[in-house]
Amino acid sequence: MQQMWLSLLSGLCLRLVFLCTAEEGLEFPNFDGKDRVLDISERNYKKALKRYDLLCLFYHEPLPANKGLQKRFQMTELVLELTAQVLENKDIGFGMVDSQKDAKVARKLGLEEVGSLYVFKDDRVIEFDGELSSDTLVEFLLDVLEDPVEMINNAMELRAFERMEEDIRLIGYFKGEDSYYKAFQEASERFQPYIKFFATFDKSVAKHLSLKMNEVNFYEPFMEEPAILPGRPLTEMDIVEFVNQHRRATLRKLRAENMFETWEDDMDGIHIVAFAEEEDPDGYEFLEILKDVARDNTNNPELSIVWIDPDDFPLLTTYWEKTFKLDLFRPQIGVVNVTDADSVWLDMSNDEDLPTAEELEDWIEDVLSGRVNTEDDDESADDQDSPDSYVTEDSSESHDPDEEDDSDD
Amino acid sequence: MQQMWLSLLSGLCLRLVFLCTAEEGLEFPNFDGKDRVLDISERNYKKALKRYDLLCLFYHEPLPANKGLQKRFQMTELVLELTAQVLENKDIGFGMVDSQKDAKVARKLGLEEVGSLYVFKDDRVIEFDGELSSDTLVEFLLDVLEDPVEMINNAMELRAFERMEEDIRLIGYFKGEDSYYKAFQEASERFQPYIKFFATFDKSVAKHLSLKMNEVNFYEPFMEEPAILPGRPLTEMDIVEFVNQHRRATLRKLRAENMFETWEDDMDGIHIVAFAEEEDPDGYEFLEILKDVARDNTNNPELSIVWIDPDDFPLLTTYWEKTFKLDLFRPQIGVVNVTDADSVWLDMSNDEDLPTAEELEDWIEDVLSGRVNTEDDDESADDQDSPDSYVTEDSSESHDPDEEDDSDD
Repeated sequence: MQQMWLSLLSGLCLRLVFLCTAEEGLEFPNFDGKDRVLDISERNYKKALKRYDLLCLFYHEPLPANKGLQKRFQMTELVLELTAQVLENKDIGFGMVDSQKDAKVARKLGLEEVGSLYVFKDDRVIEFDGELSSDTLVEFLLDVLEDPVEMINNAMELRAFERMEEDIRLIGYFKGEDSYYKAFQEASERFQPYIKFFATFDKSVAKHLSLKMNEVNFYEPFMEEPAILPGRPLTEMDIVEFVNQHRRATLRKLRAENMFETWEDDMDGIHIVAFAEEEDPDGYEFLEILKDVARDNTNNPELSIVWIDPDDFPLLTTYWEKTFKLDLFRPQIGVVNVTDADSVWLDMSNDEDLPTAEELEDWIEDVLSGRVNTEDDDESADDQDSPDSYVTEDSSESHDPDEEDDSDD
Repeated sequence: MQQMWLSLLSGLCLRLVFLCTAEEGLEFPNFDGKDRVLDISERNYKKALKRYDLLCLFYHEPLPANKGLQKRFQMTELVLELTAQVLENKDIGFGMVDSQKDAKVARKLGLEEVGSLYVFKDDRVIEFDGELSSDTLVEFLLDVLEDPVEMINNAMELRAFERMEEDIRLIGYFKGEDSYYKAFQEASERFQPYIKFFATFDKSVAKHLSLKMNEVNFYEPFMEEPAILPGRPLTEMDIVEFVNQHRRATLRKLRAENMFETWEDDMDGIHIVAFAEEEDPDGYEFLEILKDVARDNTNNPELSIVWIDPDDFPLLTTYWEKTFKLDLFRPQIGVVNVTDADSVWLDMSNDEDLPTAEELEDWIEDVLSGRVNTEDDDESADDQDSPDSYVTEDSSESHDPDEEDDSDD
């Protein structure tokens, strides 16, 4: 095979542009080679900010000397170029900001995390810290272009709202587009598109949700009952503060659009991670048990379980299986040390018997107390009663002697 | 920007390998440059078939002389190489079969459609005619590796089964792994992974589904009641024939894994296409109306509506908006001529009022009778009463004088 190509493209997960031969209507975009991504500098950043409805700036380290890293850098440019091409008619500008060469501009614009993409919309900045692929990015930017508050006008839309249990959602009842609604809207803009804001002006919708006039409800993912924001009417800052205090959910789904941000928001260096394929009967059942556990423990600030649906991350599935020594055709729950990806998993090898909510809670208690931790990894799975051993970070990724057994050909 | 790179990679929608800097656990695979895809020939195909649990063969035209097409060809190889790498421990082989050079092998293996990928599993062949990207392909192959029949053992798994309304599903009630179950299992293998097969040995699950012993139910997507397969016990061929007769649903969702196959299965050169974002209240509402229409018309063999959720195809969204002159932030329904992608769309510009199921049925009747067709496109949208004008195929993709107005910068 084309060795030059392969090595040139090493480090790339790519998507083939597949042209439908005989029939029209499903043509994936071809990158046309036109430069659309701006090289941002002190001379042009203000003009760029003014010119576009949205301006996306990728904040990056200087072009590295290392060839491998250079390739990766060029990939980033290409992801942005293709995204810019696909969204050409949407009035979105794209640019690159060099953390060294353009340090002054970066400071002025408030760019902080190298490797993040910052989206400027009106007077706000939205940070994107997700999978940097064109499809994730396009979907994200199309979400940012939508109105930050979605109206719920009737019973059917209310049903749609009630089905969105995976999302953090707020809904407010207002008389109309008055100052209270405006405060709600201003707050929504600070969290778009990560947290969903809804409003209704309809009495019967409000009644169904037990919402009083100018009241706002906060729905934590997977919880049956919302929290009511204290006080009404609410100011923008009341809402912003409440959301900031409550945005780390007891059970949160990993999403491509902010996966790195979620992963960085660990709990003392660890994550409790649950793998469950929602489309699979076993996975669905396990997820329902997890939801029960989350509902029982919603007031425990120490607990936040990251739920990963392997269907959402096909390219990571075998990486996780290898790294964590798991079979992801089945549901799994474990503790992952985010520093070295060392992990320990609950034994659920009996095919028919998933743990009950109570058994799962006991295990989680053991995790939170440190009785189950990633350092007992190398011993037998049942040997979990060594008291008070805490998670430490001295293990390296490949210290496990079993690791080489994975490639079995 | 890197002009060489850009033009080299033109025609590629790519995905950046984004390495999480400080934390471990979310590393997207880097292509390591190792050749894993076989060049299949008369000498090695039998050995390859024997060696792997699954063998995936991409059936392709000879390497073209045209440089642009060569690049596309190399992209295909790279998609396959990365897929092979990601699935390295799953005992899956990959190969390329040249339709000219390897014509004899292709004939022996029964490969027919150039551009398709054929998966050999035991004595069966599964054709993949979907988006040829690594993530779609990995997900597809992981599905093929699973058991073709999924067991439903309890009330919670039953709930998972009942939620899968988007899929064609069959479920059978059997005493155990007897010959009737085996016939069902053999049938399931012919449709894996496109059509989902479930079985239960549990009396209370069967009772809930009103299933008698050895009976099989067929669930058309979005229908509330299943069809009962006539006769019991059923042979493999009884099941296969029934599924083949009923597999084109009245409302079917476009999926990346078989999108081109679905699109090629048009109705006399047209598709009725509905765009609706399920996660959006408006889109959800419209989809519910569509389901009502589909339920009312499930026995009409002339009708099959293709539902596209734009969220599933971010890179195609703006292409569709441009090609069909639509706003895809809102639900839409129209008729598309698959030969030239010419189309006509129902006017639903009044923000609050989606059509009722009855209004939609009237419009669909007009489409099926030819009163609404893609050739009235250039006239006013209201002028749809010209009688008996049929869809013809003489228009070309860019004949519309409005087309140039799309790029408004």
